[in-house]
Amino acid sequence: MTTEQLTVTIIITSWKNTVGRADKFFSTLTEEQFLLEVAPGRNRILYLLGHLTAVHDGLHTILGLGERMHPELDAMFVSKPDKEIEPLPSISALRKYWTDVNGSLSEKFAGLLPQEWLQRHMAMSEEDYGRDPTRNRLSVLLSRTNHLSYHLGQAVLAIK
Amino acid sequence: MTTEQLTVTIIITSWKNTVGRADKFFSTLTEEQFLLEVAPGRNRILYLLGHLTAVHDGLHTILGLGERMHPELDAMFVSKPDKEIEPLPSISALRKYWTDVNGSLSEKFAGLLPQEWLQRHMAMSEEDYGRDPTRNRLSVLLSRTNHLSYHLGQAVLAIK
Repeated sequence: MTTEQLTVTIIITSWKNTVGRADKFFSTLTEEQFLLEVAPGRNRILYLLGHLTAVHDGLHTILGLGERMHPELDAMFVSKPDKEIEPLPSISALRKYWTDVNGSLSEKFAGLLPQEWLQRHMAMSEEDYGRDPTRNRLSVLLSRTNHLSYHLGQAVLAIK
Repeated sequence: MTTEQLTVTIIITSWKNTVGRADKFFSTLTEEQFLLEVAPGRNRILYLLGHLTAVHDGLHTILGLGERMHPELDAMFVSKPDKEIEPLPSISALRKYWTDVNGSLSEKFAGLLPQEWLQRHMAMSEEDYGRDPTRNRLSVLLSRTNHLSYHLGQAVLAIK
């Protein structure tokens, strides 16, 4: 394994493990539990599921991996806080979107060569990337992995 | 910048940014706020600060970077849940430990060469590392960065 392969593998594995932990958590929940708030007056688990799905879906665009699957989620789960938009998609629909989006990313990731992970992400100009080559696809994936951990830490609080 | 330098830089930057966000959050809190629970019946922020400090301190050992600074924290903040051990160190002591531990790590990290980050971590045998070279220092640092994000997501919930 080259150094390039090794470090890319480590970062993708960290992403997959974190998605796996979230999957496992969401899969244990009843429909009623998805309506619980993570703390009094805060987001419901349902909203976090939609938010994470929308943000992960956005990786298709920022990593240059093709069209988003559910751009309609942004208006409900990114631009607006929880409890402002009604009706939201059903919990079973959201669970399916979550699985579909992460499945699609997993497939696209498998098609990228290690050196392609080191290329700039799509929200960066060539010029800015020239100045700071650490702003590449890998750094975006790291940032989204931490974003997932952050909200997963919150979601588990809703369940005793 | 070589590929090795680039990926190591990205991973260390992600760690530093996350520690920076936690620093910023903790620095805004009053002594009273450190006593708030992140959700009803859950950990207090004070406990999360001690827990994160103990786990970060443990990086000295697992990354082979020298002696731990505060091994006594494990018995209070890792082996036991919140509210089981009294008295705990004062909040000002815990803030100092947090800053000292992260500062020490930052110094030690600066002294590691990129290829040293790809070496096995100290909880791995040479034999196991031979079978799985992704179990290296970088993967440990990624895991601890996500651990920090997870608890930071919880800590912010305590504050309105």
